[in-house]
Amino acid sequence: MKQITVHAPATVANLVCGFDVLGLCLAEPYDIMEVRLLDKRQVIVRTTNNFPLPSDPAMNTAGAPLLEMLAVLKQDVGFEVIITKQIKPGSGIGSSAASSAGAVVAANELLGNIFSKEELVRFAMFGEKVASGVKHADNVAPCIYGGVTLIRSIFPLDIIPIDSPPLYVTVLHPQIEVRTSDAREILRKEVLLKDAIRQWGNIAGLVAGLMKSDYELIGRSLEDVIIEPVRSILIPGFDLIKAECISSGAIGGGISGSGPSIFMLSKDEATAQSVATVMQSVYDRIGVNYHMYVTTVNPQGVRVVER
Amino acid sequence: MKQITVHAPATVANLVCGFDVLGLCLAEPYDIMEVRLLDKRQVIVRTTNNFPLPSDPAMNTAGAPLLEMLAVLKQDVGFEVIITKQIKPGSGIGSSAASSAGAVVAANELLGNIFSKEELVRFAMFGEKVASGVKHADNVAPCIYGGVTLIRSIFPLDIIPIDSPPLYVTVLHPQIEVRTSDAREILRKEVLLKDAIRQWGNIAGLVAGLMKSDYELIGRSLEDVIIEPVRSILIPGFDLIKAECISSGAIGGGISGSGPSIFMLSKDEATAQSVATVMQSVYDRIGVNYHMYVTTVNPQGVRVVER
Repeated sequence: MKQITVHAPATVANLVCGFDVLGLCLAEPYDIMEVRLLDKRQVIVRTTNNFPLPSDPAMNTAGAPLLEMLAVLKQDVGFEVIITKQIKPGSGIGSSAASSAGAVVAANELLGNIFSKEELVRFAMFGEKVASGVKHADNVAPCIYGGVTLIRSIFPLDIIPIDSPPLYVTVLHPQIEVRTSDAREILRKEVLLKDAIRQWGNIAGLVAGLMKSDYELIGRSLEDVIIEPVRSILIPGFDLIKAECISSGAIGGGISGSGPSIFMLSKDEATAQSVATVMQSVYDRIGVNYHMYVTTVNPQGVRVVER
Repeated sequence: MKQITVHAPATVANLVCGFDVLGLCLAEPYDIMEVRLLDKRQVIVRTTNNFPLPSDPAMNTAGAPLLEMLAVLKQDVGFEVIITKQIKPGSGIGSSAASSAGAVVAANELLGNIFSKEELVRFAMFGEKVASGVKHADNVAPCIYGGVTLIRSIFPLDIIPIDSPPLYVTVLHPQIEVRTSDAREILRKEVLLKDAIRQWGNIAGLVAGLMKSDYELIGRSLEDVIIEPVRSILIPGFDLIKAECISSGAIGGGISGSGPSIFMLSKDEATAQSVATVMQSVYDRIGVNYHMYVTTVNPQGVRVVER
């Protein structure tokens, strides 16, 4: 029986000024996904570590994309997926996207890589629709492509990999619940033109900074005058953490996806570790539990570890 | 007596999706500016070809920036500026910016290049304030830096040169009047968040496309869902011209600055010439007079031609 094991990594969507259009792939944490090719049209999804999963694969973030994939295949094949979930759902670092992206990349490998990365993103977005009601790609695209990706447009889908210099990432995941749908609902439907202009200056600056390996420009561009001022009120200690991390040498950072995780970028590992210490000391003071990751940008995305 | 002659070129602000933050320098047309160093604190501005100019230098787009420059100088110096105006005021291709930028670059040369390009932009913006009431930099920055420039922020000023592949530019200047202040007033003060997101996807795509020399991506990103739908109604035949130019091979384009000029980008000169023919035939049909330029991106900006 053909089977494969992949690591499906966490991702940071938005990157502060790139709401809904930018995302970045992390080296850690990642889910471990074992996928087997079946000889009938069927999708089964299980977890090894008792994560609660909807039993209907169509309602499942790994199952829905695979059902979409089966729908375009002529062969009588199916997939069994066994997930060792290590990325906590509701963390804001792309837990559902990892299941969707990992499933389609593994399935495509088993089928002999018949689909392009863009087609895989298209399938994986059905998982995001199950998870949040919206077909967004700012987690699944970086999870599949690796590195930093721009989703210029969803309809039609237009994904552009953006080169970046080495970046270390410190992620604090506060143990509080912020639902993606709530984080979306508190946003205003209209924004001031002058704020939108400031934001598109920043996103243009961020893309230029990444492509020029200009850390200072990246830092100056990591500014969000639209989303962060609203969403950050849901995250305890956000302003204090941000200010102290930047004083400690972080290039910049903000809310990861729709939160509650906070991420900070640094030029080197020592700084990323100091930033972690700063985050820890703030959270120890305010008494909220947390998980912490010090990692790097992952240039590869979902990775096959065993065939 | 020390004197210098410079060519101060036209510029295209906004570049469709980069309202207020992007601009591009053209090779032609340009103003010819002769600047003399005087031995007393005085600014005199004249034109050779009877363009009407405010006699008070503080009210003049070339004079105001030079007065700002004098204010920071300790020496007893002044400048006499003689402009042969070739860029038509009110064309939307940075006529006032050329006078401001040319004046400060020439003056700086006469002083031994004591100011940085960023400082020169800062002075030149006082000319834009005289011309339109607003200190914007999306014409003066590309005029001084050359090429494509991003103005990430005005306060504080943050100018980022963006590399670009060779680009040919066709400019149609309809002989109608659109005042910058009117073009600004018809814009809504608020925009839909979903439109703003589409716009920042496009500006990120445009910057990435320019830096990757990816003409297709540049073309896909030259889309404006916010400003163009409103401003284009002031320009006769806009939608038809845009559609026909793109069918004729143009990469894309739109309104230059606040209009009424329309610009189109092409990969090569032959296409840029066909695009000019298309524009001409539409305007001959609708019976509006026009000027036409087929030119290139100017990587240098204001150029010293004689010392």
